[in-house]
Amino acid sequence: MKAAVLGTGSVGQTIATRLAGLGHQVVMGTRDVAESKLRKTADAFGNPAIGEWVEKNPSVKLVTFKEAAAFGEIVFNCTKGVYGIEALTLAGKENLAGKIIVDISNPLDFSKGMPPTLTISNDNSLGEEIQKQFPNAKVVKALNTMWCGLMVNPAMINGGDHSTFVCGNDQDAKVQVKTILKSFGWAEKNILDLGDITNSRGTEMYLPLWVRVFGVTQNGAFNIKIVS
Amino acid sequence: MKAAVLGTGSVGQTIATRLAGLGHQVVMGTRDVAESKLRKTADAFGNPAIGEWVEKNPSVKLVTFKEAAAFGEIVFNCTKGVYGIEALTLAGKENLAGKIIVDISNPLDFSKGMPPTLTISNDNSLGEEIQKQFPNAKVVKALNTMWCGLMVNPAMINGGDHSTFVCGNDQDAKVQVKTILKSFGWAEKNILDLGDITNSRGTEMYLPLWVRVFGVTQNGAFNIKIVS
Repeated sequence: MKAAVLGTGSVGQTIATRLAGLGHQVVMGTRDVAESKLRKTADAFGNPAIGEWVEKNPSVKLVTFKEAAAFGEIVFNCTKGVYGIEALTLAGKENLAGKIIVDISNPLDFSKGMPPTLTISNDNSLGEEIQKQFPNAKVVKALNTMWCGLMVNPAMINGGDHSTFVCGNDQDAKVQVKTILKSFGWAEKNILDLGDITNSRGTEMYLPLWVRVFGVTQNGAFNIKIVS
Repeated sequence: MKAAVLGTGSVGQTIATRLAGLGHQVVMGTRDVAESKLRKTADAFGNPAIGEWVEKNPSVKLVTFKEAAAFGEIVFNCTKGVYGIEALTLAGKENLAGKIIVDISNPLDFSKGMPPTLTISNDNSLGEEIQKQFPNAKVVKALNTMWCGLMVNPAMINGGDHSTFVCGNDQDAKVQVKTILKSFGWAEKNILDLGDITNSRGTEMYLPLWVRVFGVTQNGAFNIKIVS
């Protein structure tokens, strides 16, 4: 599979590494390739800057958003929520048409202090806003409810037995995304399909609880398991 | 303990029954006692109307919001979120001063169709709004993240092993509420203190996910367990 990962932060790096490790052809999209390659300072959590990361991961080529979207048969939106629409716009509608966009982003707003609020919520969501603005793409919201380390390696905690969600308007696109999740280690029984893309409201509005649990535990390696 | 339960719906009925069963003296507050006693039609989920319920639960006296708050050493806000502030205002600031308000309510807005949105969220919450409007009460947000049957009987699922949250500004009030939760069957390790009352934003904003999981499972007897 030819995969485009949009976004060069820890989520993008983690998804790209995992996809490449599974044998897919992966490119990573960024706004300004030359500028990204110059970034060498790790973030506050010790995640490597993209300039350092690309040197250590030569199998993943760093290209523009547009080049990435043109290359990918499937597109992973791993941008920061506030930049997502802009990044996808730069990627180009023509390069996204007919393709699956796996939207992993969250509309977190850190500008008003911690913990973050959401830039969009309640009667709308980033997932459905992306679907509205890119009507010819097939947006599947997925994996946005946890730390990126768990997204691609659920077995890291609780024997892999915890919950993840998908939603989107295209049934076949969700089946394909589920297949990818299973290749990451997710058990079928732990992938809950919530329905159409408006259900992004549910998974995005869970983030204000997530950031608070993280605030208490100070360790991102946790998730929720739906028990009944 | 003398307990006031504000609200006559299934949450209020469930909390009142459980508290009375544990030997506490319980009154239930409503807007109009005479009108409430006339209500005899079960709701869409088969929960008994309050008029029927009081006949079968003579140990719980039905009184006005004001009489209930005056009686209770602790007050459980089990009203529908959109009526909560009004009900507490009718209960009277003077009757709430110095007391713990266990706020179980959620600001669900069903007026725009299903699933509900929230009337207040993101940079505010019902829990903190109640604390602001009743500054001399000690508001502890608790139990609002699940179906009421589980609130008082967590052992009903997964051997009682799943998560609940408390938050509030008064440390001693939270300790007292935790003691009540433990008397309901909650294990200490499963009660996560998120911090001050602003953390109500987290537990209330989880509701949009809860209603969607319920939409898929069609059974309220589920909860989340934080796993790590």
